[in-house]
Amino acid sequence: MESRNIRLAVIPGDGIGTEVVAEGLKVLEAVGTKIEPTHYDLGAARYHRTGETLPDSVLQELRGYDAILLGAVGDPSVPPGILERDLLLRLRFEFDHYVNLRPVKLFPGVRTPLADTPPENIDMIVVREGTEGLYAGTGGAMRRGTPHEIATQESLNTAYGVERVVRYAFDKAQSRPRKKLTLVHKTNVLTYAGDLWQRTVNRVAAEYPEVSVDYSHIDAASMFFVTQPERFDVVVTDNLFGDIITDLGAAIAGGIGLAASGNINPTGAAPSMFEPVHGSAPDIAGQGKADPTATILSVAMLLDHLGLSAEAAKVEQAVAADIAARAEGAAPRSTQQIGDDITARVAG
Amino acid sequence: MESRNIRLAVIPGDGIGTEVVAEGLKVLEAVGTKIEPTHYDLGAARYHRTGETLPDSVLQELRGYDAILLGAVGDPSVPPGILERDLLLRLRFEFDHYVNLRPVKLFPGVRTPLADTPPENIDMIVVREGTEGLYAGTGGAMRRGTPHEIATQESLNTAYGVERVVRYAFDKAQSRPRKKLTLVHKTNVLTYAGDLWQRTVNRVAAEYPEVSVDYSHIDAASMFFVTQPERFDVVVTDNLFGDIITDLGAAIAGGIGLAASGNINPTGAAPSMFEPVHGSAPDIAGQGKADPTATILSVAMLLDHLGLSAEAAKVEQAVAADIAARAEGAAPRSTQQIGDDITARVAG
Ligand SMILES: CC(C)[C@H](C(=O)O)[C@@H](O)C(=O)O
Ligand SMILES: CC(C)[C@H](C(=O)O)[C@@H](O)C(=O)O
Repeated sequence: MESRNIRLAVIPGDGIGTEVVAEGLKVLEAVGTKIEPTHYDLGAARYHRTGETLPDSVLQELRGYDAILLGAVGDPSVPPGILERDLLLRLRFEFDHYVNLRPVKLFPGVRTPLADTPPENIDMIVVREGTEGLYAGTGGAMRRGTPHEIATQESLNTAYGVERVVRYAFDKAQSRPRKKLTLVHKTNVLTYAGDLWQRTVNRVAAEYPEVSVDYSHIDAASMFFVTQPERFDVVVTDNLFGDIITDLGAAIAGGIGLAASGNINPTGAAPSMFEPVHGSAPDIAGQGKADPTATILSVAMLLDHLGLSAEAAKVEQAVAADIAARAEGAAPRSTQQIGDDITARVAG
Repeated sequence: MESRNIRLAVIPGDGIGTEVVAEGLKVLEAVGTKIEPTHYDLGAARYHRTGETLPDSVLQELRGYDAILLGAVGDPSVPPGILERDLLLRLRFEFDHYVNLRPVKLFPGVRTPLADTPPENIDMIVVREGTEGLYAGTGGAMRRGTPHEIATQESLNTAYGVERVVRYAFDKAQSRPRKKLTLVHKTNVLTYAGDLWQRTVNRVAAEYPEVSVDYSHIDAASMFFVTQPERFDVVVTDNLFGDIITDLGAAIAGGIGLAASGNINPTGAAPSMFEPVHGSAPDIAGQGKADPTATILSVAMLLDHLGLSAEAAKVEQAVAADIAARAEGAAPRSTQQIGDDITARVAG
């Protein structure tokens, strides 16, 4: 009996999103999975055409898929926050993607901007909380536009929300050779939220005696990412700190063109969503300049999430081989050429 | 007629704070200023002895000084937040230090962890807001310690608070050769606060036609600090983003041992306070291992703030010469030796 096809919703989005997603899908096809993609035209173009960001009916439809592949959203023609909040963050929230998983790994052959840093020194995974904190969107403005304006933003943190992501992070740490977990926060200033995070980590730690636990303030952690990245194995942190530190992680691991991510709902109650860490990069959109590798690595994470670990490994190996070839001084390639080359390695 | 002595309050604080401040004072004396220092024993020791962090009477006394020199506060024996909030942050708030000025400058001869980055590529100044944002301390916890706990933190931003620091940053940018100002925020997620910051920058920009204005999200800025630090000349940002990005700045400019800062009240209504960016580093305290250079450079900022620009320049030059000598492979020195060597250069 044949197993049913895997149903994948594809949201290319804006800017380079469409270009990199096309390459991701090529690789997905080549790896020989029974994945059936359906495209959704969400993003700036649709917003301008219809005023819609994410219609409820589409949200409902998306809920029925096994997974989502997203390119990037955001365009300078749309005021900041609209597509981010009403489309991207809404998907993360509605589908309860409470784990935002972001590996920070230096592939051999990739040039890191850090001097004298061998690949083995940069090999961590950041477990970023994805559904609360300052991303909750609460806050407001009063007397807007006057000299008496006050604007607030609220960070909401719940025991429920913190504990589940901390548990996930401990599981991850337990499964890795170094078994080390670092909480990154700012407990000395954000005393209420920091206290909740720290107590939660302390409590859950008792159930994982093999995992060694560390703590770093976000400011110090940012420094250590540059000066001693080997300090980190699994990092668990809140939504905003995770946002910052994973871009920094992308930078030290050779750039945003290689950084993959998964927005994961570990319960399976809603589809998980995979996307490159980079944005829509409107300045280089449509020119074939974007590196699709981050999307292709996100596809590997997607395959792994769906239980197709052999296929995931194949994609990762193809990427690693492609990257190693770059180090040997290959000429610069277009988005499509990189996609084709990795596809050929996957197929071959 | 002799001008009156400058009255300086000195708060060595905890850990390496006392060690580095001693060297800072040595340099201050050698530079030949009529500065009269008075020591205040605030920090962990006093807290344990008397339960006091910053008594109101001491706060009142401090108000009468021309400036404050602070080492570092914080000790693992005190729960996180107590000394930070009730001593360090209270000083910043009570004395309305709305500008937290943090130069990020790579001195020739200093090793940056960034590959292929010449000193001229790292030369910026971060103007961090110092009195509001998430540092306001508002927030709370409900059902603490139960599975239903919720912990909140609030970021408070006012037109009054944002405009004054933005104006300061534009003045700074106007006075520098590149005349470039970059706002760092997260306008696409922190829409209320981001909107206030962005509108304020846009409005004030009209008064500074020679200053070119740029914007970067905090996540992208963290990446650019590592990959393209030359993008930045003057950075203006909120309290928390400024905290993070200046530690990162310290890292790329050769380490926290060199990073100076000033907590400035530009109106002169209360004394400004100068301190190294680093913390109390309890792990190396009392061992003569701390680099006092950050404190000595903070002393230079203090002198400059008090209008003693020739003396400030002298201290800076002595530091630059000392650093250049390090590059020539001088043997590692103790805190005191570094202080002595810089003092000798200042005196000689
Ligand atoms: C586009 C933006 C809302 C998003 C975020 O802040 O989470 C992005 O920076 C990311 O990291 O995925
Ligand atoms: C000690 C701490 C409260 C402080 C801050 O967060 O401002 C420190 O990190 C700094 O940057 O001066």
